[in-house]
Parts: sequence; C-alpha cells; structure tokens
Amino acid sequence: MNAETPSAADPGQPTAPSGEPQGGVSRRAVIGWAGAGVALGAAAAGSVAAATLRDGDSAPGAAPSVDIPFYSDHQSGIATPVQDRLHFAAFDVTTGNRDALVKMLKDWTKAAAVMTGGREVGSGATGLAEAPPDDTGEALGLPSSRLTLTVGFGPTLFEKDGVDRFGLRAKRPEALIDLPKFPHDNLDPARSGGDICVQACADDPQVAVHAIRNLARIGMGVVNVRWSQLGFGKTSSTTPEAQTPRNLMGFKDGTHNISGTDADALGKHVWVAPGEGPEWMTGGSYLVSRRIRMHIETWDRTSLKEQEDVFGRTKREGAPYTKQQERDAPDLGAMPEGSHVRLAHPDSNDGLMILRRGFSFTDGTDGLGRLEAGLFFLAYQRDTRKAFVPLQQRLAASDRLNEYIQHVGSAHFACPPGIRKPGEWWGQALFG
Amino acid sequence: MNAETPSAADPGQPTAPSGEPQGGVSRRAVIGWAGAGVALGAAAAGSVAAATLRDGDSAPGAAPSVDIPFYSDHQSGIATPVQDRLHFAAFDVTTGNRDALVKMLKDWTKAAAVMTGGREVGSGATGLAEAPPDDTGEALGLPSSRLTLTVGFGPTLFEKDGVDRFGLRAKRPEALIDLPKFPHDNLDPARSGGDICVQACADDPQVAVHAIRNLARIGMGVVNVRWSQLGFGKTSSTTPEAQTPRNLMGFKDGTHNISGTDADALGKHVWVAPGEGPEWMTGGSYLVSRRIRMHIETWDRTSLKEQEDVFGRTKREGAPYTKQQERDAPDLGAMPEGSHVRLAHPDSNDGLMILRRGFSFTDGTDGLGRLEAGLFFLAYQRDTRKAFVPLQQRLAASDRLNEYIQHVGSAHFACPPGIRKPGEWWGQALFG
Repeated sequence: MNAETPSAADPGQPTAPSGEPQGGVSRRAVIGWAGAGVALGAAAAGSVAAATLRDGDSAPGAAPSVDIPFYSDHQSGIATPVQDRLHFAAFDVTTGNRDALVKMLKDWTKAAAVMTGGREVGSGATGLAEAPPDDTGEALGLPSSRLTLTVGFGPTLFEKDGVDRFGLRAKRPEALIDLPKFPHDNLDPARSGGDICVQACADDPQVAVHAIRNLARIGMGVVNVRWSQLGFGKTSSTTPEAQTPRNLMGFKDGTHNISGTDADALGKHVWVAPGEGPEWMTGGSYLVSRRIRMHIETWDRTSLKEQEDVFGRTKREGAPYTKQQERDAPDLGAMPEGSHVRLAHPDSNDGLMILRRGFSFTDGTDGLGRLEAGLFFLAYQRDTRKAFVPLQQRLAASDRLNEYIQHVGSAHFACPPGIRKPGEWWGQALFG
Repeated sequence: MNAETPSAADPGQPTAPSGEPQGGVSRRAVIGWAGAGVALGAAAAGSVAAATLRDGDSAPGAAPSVDIPFYSDHQSGIATPVQDRLHFAAFDVTTGNRDALVKMLKDWTKAAAVMTGGREVGSGATGLAEAPPDDTGEALGLPSSRLTLTVGFGPTLFEKDGVDRFGLRAKRPEALIDLPKFPHDNLDPARSGGDICVQACADDPQVAVHAIRNLARIGMGVVNVRWSQLGFGKTSSTTPEAQTPRNLMGFKDGTHNISGTDADALGKHVWVAPGEGPEWMTGGSYLVSRRIRMHIETWDRTSLKEQEDVFGRTKREGAPYTKQQERDAPDLGAMPEGSHVRLAHPDSNDGLMILRRGFSFTDGTDGLGRLEAGLFFLAYQRDTRKAFVPLQQRLAASDRLNEYIQHVGSAHFACPPGIRKPGEWWGQALFG
C-alpha cells in the first residue's frame, strides 16, 4: 500500500527567504498556504534587523505569524522578544565519541534553521514509507509561532569527574563556573546541571515541544534528555512597551528588565565582549536557569500587606512603594528592608543588571495535594561571576521572598554567539 | 502604609452583561478597559445561543476575546468550542461536614461565574490590606480567554469504602459505575479517581491555572487537590469546520468528533435524557478521563508505513486508507485489522459516538530520560456503560496502538446540567 497521499507529493514549496537553507519542506506548503517573504523592521539590536512575515500564514482572522531570524550575530531567544511558551531541555552526552557529538551538533543546527522557519525537518514528502519519518509530524500545518532555539554548553561538557571528555577543558571559559551553593538551596540533581541545553520558545507550546522532541530524536545515541521544563506564562519581557506579565504570586516582577532593543545595555550586561574569555564565546552570553518552587498555598493565605511588603510594590498596579505607577522610579529607602525589589534593584547592586527571561510553570500536584508550581527563572548575562552570583548571594541572604519560595533546580550554560550563515554549526568555534 | 493604589480604588466597573452577577470586580476595569456587551450568534446547540463579545478586550491588534456564557442549560466546556489549553483537577473531599461542602459548592459557583466572565474573584479593590486578597491576582489584566469551568462528581462522593459520606448514596446514578479494569491498564492511583473534578479550559493557560488555583483556595479545609493535569494542545475539536489538530504521534485523530452545534447528535450521544437516571443528571453528561502515556521514543523509531497502518490513516493528510482527503468517508475494510480508526469508528460500533475533548500533555521527563508525554483523553457521553466501556474494551483487546501507549490514569465523573441563572449552584439538585 502506498502510504503517500497526493497532497503530500505536491511540491508547492514557497521560496525560502534569503539566508535560509532549502533543505526543509515547508509545513505551510504541505497544507497549501502561500509563502511570501516580507521584511519587517523589527528585531533585537545587534541581530539581523529583520523578521520575516509570511502572508496567509495562519487561519483567517488570526494575526499573521512572524518568524524570528535564525541567522544573526547573537543567538535568537535571548534579546529577541519573549514568546508565550517555553520548552527547555538539558541533555547529557552519553557518548565519548567527539565526532559523533560534532555530527549531532551539525544536524541539530540544520534542523533548528528549518524548524525556526516553520518548516519540517528532513526530506518530508520524499521520505520512504519503510523508514521512520524525519519529522515527528505534530507541528505539520502550524506556523513557526516565533520559535527560537538557543543552545548552551554546561561545565560538565568541558570536564566531568576530572576527565577532559572531548578535549575541551582548555576552552572552558573562566566565567562558566560551577555555581556556588546558596543559602536555602534545596537542589534536586535530577533537575539540575546538564552538558548541553536547548531553550525552545514559541507562542504555541506544540511547536516548542515539537522542536525539543525532534532534536532529542536526532541526538539519539549521542545525548539523553537529563531534565526538561515546560513554561506556560512568560514572567519577564524584553519589550518594555508591552504590558508587564504577572508571576504566579500575582505580582509584576519584570518591570525593569533589559530591553531587547537597548544595544548599550545589552553590550554592557549581556553580550560577552572580545577578549573577555575564550574567543568562541565573544558575542555569546551566560545562562543561569533556576527552578524556583513557590509555596503557593502559604502565599495565598498571606495578607495583601505582607505580600506587598515582601515585594516592595503594590499588587494591583505594580507601583513601587510610595509611588503611583508601575514605571515610576522607585524610592528604595521607602521599601521595607529585605523587600525583593529593594534588594534586587540595580541601584542596590552597583548598577548590576541581568536579562531575565523566565516562565511560570505548573507541573500538576506534589504528593501532598499542593500545586507543584513556580518560576522557571532564566537569566542571561555577560559574566555570571559578576551578575547572578553576587545578586543571588544578596537575595538568598536577605530576601523576604525566601519564606515563600525554594530553589529546587539549577544549571549554568555558556551560550555561544549566533549562527551567521548556512553551513555554520552550533559549537563550531568551540570544537573547531 | 496604605497598600492600595489609586487605580485600584477606581470603581470604573463595566455594566455586567445580563445574566451575570455583579459580585466580581472586572479585571478589565482595573486596567481601564471598556466593557460593552455585544451578542454574537455562536454557541453550542442547546446552550444559551449567544456568546458575549467585549470590545476593546485585548491588546491593540489582537483578536477580541469572546466570553463563553456560564449560564446555560448544559454546562459549558462540553459542547462549546474547544479552547487551546487545559488545567484539569480532581479533588478529594477531606471533611465529613455536608454543610461545609455545600457552602463550598455555592462559593465555587459564584467564583466560576465571575472568572468565566473575565472578572476577579471577591471584592477586589475593597479588600482589606490585613487580609489575604480574595483573588490570587495572576490573571489581573487578562481577558476571560474563553474560560469554561465544568464540574463533575465522582463515584466516591456518593459512597467510599462502603460509607455513605454525605447521604448521597441513593442518588448515585447507575451509569456512574466504577470503571472496569481494561487489558493493559497500568493505573497510578495517585493520578486516578477523585470525589469532584473541575475541568478548566481557556485559550490562555495562565487563566486556566488561575481558575483551578482559586477554586482550590476557596475549598481549603473542605477539599484537597488529589491530582491535576495541564494540557497544552487540544487533540479534538467540536467545530468540524476548523482544522483538525494533531496529537503527539503526529496524526489527526479527532476528525469524526461530534459537532457542538449538532443538536441531534448531542441529544443522542452526549446529554442525559429525562428519566434515564436520577432527575439531577437530566441534561448532564458523564465524563471519562484517561491519562494515556505515549511511548514517544519507540514511536519515533517506527516506520511511516507502520505508523499509518496503526492508525489506518495517512500521516500527512489524515486521509483514511485508499482515500484522498481527511474527511472522505472511510472504507474500513481497506484498513489493516486492528488499526485504530477501523476499531474506533462508529460503523464498527453500532453507531456509537463519544464527544472527545482531549489534550496533549508533556510533563517533563521520566527518570529514564524519556519524554513524559501523551494524551489526556477526555470524553463526554450519555451513558458510559454504553459508550466508553464497550469502546475501550474493544480497543484494549485489539488496537494496534496499544504497543505504543499505556493508560496510566483514569477517572469517571457525573457532570450535572448547567447553571441556568445566578443563585443556582453546582450540585444544587443533587444535595437539595
């Protein structure tokens, strides 16, 4: 029986936008959508300053889908606008074979380029019925949904239990430290660490899940998923003009994030500068992930005043204490000692800023009938030793929020700069 | 310190649409949105045939948000159009006090009416700083996102370990059976059963999670969450004109679902008719939930032909074997023996149909590095004994899909008819 359908054999592929490889079959073409590249003047400073809008991308009436460019100086998914959903995966490398790892990274890069363009992995309609499909298929017919895929390398890729596994030890950045233990940490090793991470963000979770799953599949025999995390609601924004989202404590907590279009702030706080470490990290950034469980039930029994004292903001408006509006400049001295905003504010930390990109999570219920929920904190920075570490030391010591949260997962990754053109691959400068 | 902000004290509340209670503060009013009721001719047959569209509901450029009416003959969330996201919770009643349970159900109903209207639980701006806020706050500023809340009562509410806990034993419907054990079942008690369920569906997961959380909070001391499940991608649709979504196996599997506007089919297959059981269930429906884990990694290594043979459909188009288009009438005899569509099709089951409303889930990774993912199957029917049970007996015995899936959670609930007007409450006819 011929398993191919007539429509699957239709070669009506759209013209690939410039800079994108021709290898993938368009998911749109498959269901008969037209694809026409239209340049938009919107993207993160320092990235390729154009996103691709495809007319007729979505169902009638829906907003058109904008692809976020894969090829750029910096990796997408850091300064680019934050999408609605997250699937984050940390992988362990299970092979000692460097060539196999390099091949996988090349294959991953190709797959990432086509998936972020809303296209299907592999040869699509020309696949053999006797072979597993190249693409697992659950995103067929869906647009890219602004998918970004961001890769990072963990400390254990460079050295594990004293072993230089892939000849990379000398290339480990000094900034890629083993994170210190902070007060109150209660880390689950099964939700911490990892040799390689991939952050998949998209407006449609099916697209983000599809991307991680297909990378995991391509990596079979080379990597295993060590842990993964789904995030359903962004808690920070890199587009300051947008409404600040609320975390699961009901508070706006990302008001003063770095803007994705503020090239000065990104250069100062996010991107690794030339000469700051190994060459392969120039233009990259260091990512810290923390799974922060919230004691939701305790919080929900807490008075409004205590909740606001803990943050140093009003709950409804998000205004700093004694101020009227969310974006009014805070009077830190008017906030209670140990309030979260007072402690975390740049003015209390010599101007220190990190780019936050966290998501809320709810993973069902724990064994005690409590919501297993909280914040999956993601932060990008130029040097973790000078950013997340001192900030978290300060917060872990004094933050009033500590009564209501617990850090249960932690990881640290060096995210290289972006892929600039087809043919380059994730980790090329590191392994090359 | 006065924790209230000026904008929070602004009483600019919109006119509540007719049939909605005045108790809640509009989340929209809080951030200055106007609310104007505009009737739309769209809803499920047999329900109140109007949805409420509010102008200026969402951010500029976004599609306006349509509220799904809470007051209707049948509960919303069954035949009404399927939303994008799910948070499903099963609760255990922890008290033996019937009055406390009744009070909670009244409070739940009030909260459900305001939350499905995009409004905030409780007194909002007039709350005391010394008391916990009535609403946990994380949905402030968000529209209703088509939120529906659907309640059901499990067998153990009527009798548990031989005890008639709340004097309800005589009112237990015969159709609310303890589900039989099916071949291959591998049920986790911690993810099965429950005295009461609430299905929260919305296009925004933050809204669905917020709703369940606030109900859990209102129920403190009366109920505990026994288990809960987040679903991120609908796998079935009750609007047949829409594109059929794909499950995590990459297949369209909800093509021939019951349409939410097909009053004949709903009357025949979904709604309990007068005299078919206890009076309190007339106009209600029976819900079966099954957590179906997919062996994703095995599936992904399976050839396209085997995958298509398992379903009896092509993967790309979703066409039945020997046919060209997804919606072509299937030739069941042309499908492999034991293929899923052949076994599950109404023509193989004396015309039997169930209304499916399932969602894909991904709950991270299991301890073996495999995706903890699959289908959270939800099906509504007029009589489970004549619908899910014979169908699942047939599938569990012969479905080729069984090699790739496992049922790991199961529950059964009697969902009463809808709340017709303010003042009525969930379970009134049962407890009254």
